[in-house]
Amino acid sequence: MSWLDEVRWDEKGLVTAIAQDAKTQRVLMVAYMNREALTLTAQSGIAHYFSRSRQKLWKKGEESGHLQTVSELRLDCDGDVIVLQIEQAGGIACHTGRESCLYRKLVGESWQITDPVLKDPAAIYQVGHGH
Amino acid sequence: MSWLDEVRWDEKGLVTAIAQDAKTQRVLMVAYMNREALTLTAQSGIAHYFSRSRQKLWKKGEESGHLQTVSELRLDCDGDVIVLQIEQAGGIACHTGRESCLYRKLVGESWQITDPVLKDPAAIYQVGHGH
Repeated sequence: MSWLDEVRWDEKGLVTAIAQDAKTQRVLMVAYMNREALTLTAQSGIAHYFSRSRQKLWKKGEESGHLQTVSELRLDCDGDVIVLQIEQAGGIACHTGRESCLYRKLVGESWQITDPVLKDPAAIYQVGHGH
Repeated sequence: MSWLDEVRWDEKGLVTAIAQDAKTQRVLMVAYMNREALTLTAQSGIAHYFSRSRQKLWKKGEESGHLQTVSELRLDCDGDVIVLQIEQAGGIACHTGRESCLYRKLVGESWQITDPVLKDPAAIYQVGHGH
């Protein structure tokens, strides 16, 4: 059996993928992969996901330049979660321009923003458009 | 708006929940929470999930004794992922008797088991049955 068949793809053919900073172990983002995205990730060593909003393969950083170099892939006990150890180019994983998508922390009864915007998203997303 | 309304519950009323060891930052398990589970987690400081297989509220460790004490809750940018910083009682988060559910690592084209079973699952799940 192929290693790809050991993944328990959901009814949409996806698996949850968690990208963790290989050095600090901080969770940087959570996305989804289909079979093609996981295959490309393993082959190239660069993280590929499947964008649910755009319904297509998504090479993380293709527009922003914020590529993720993958050093390890793990699968969980029931096969429906992948954890990637990555090095994040530019130090920015979140589309809001922050290091991590997990920038809100529960304090009392509100989510408080703990992380600064490192780069204006408007500036980030010009990179792929010829700048 | 309530902090609970800022969570983007999916069509089944669930959100993905990632439990990370507060000390080592290792990802220990990934599960799901409904509104009740998240509320109880925040109120009690003990992780509660929603079991999709049993379709009911699941206080992690209710049978095994492997409770999770929560020191932090985070929400991601699009509101559909929660990350919990936890202390894992017994040092075993996985139902297979391992520290973490992420005990398989991709080596070449196979998932290789990297973690030992710390306790026989048969022994773990007697705890809640009167032993």
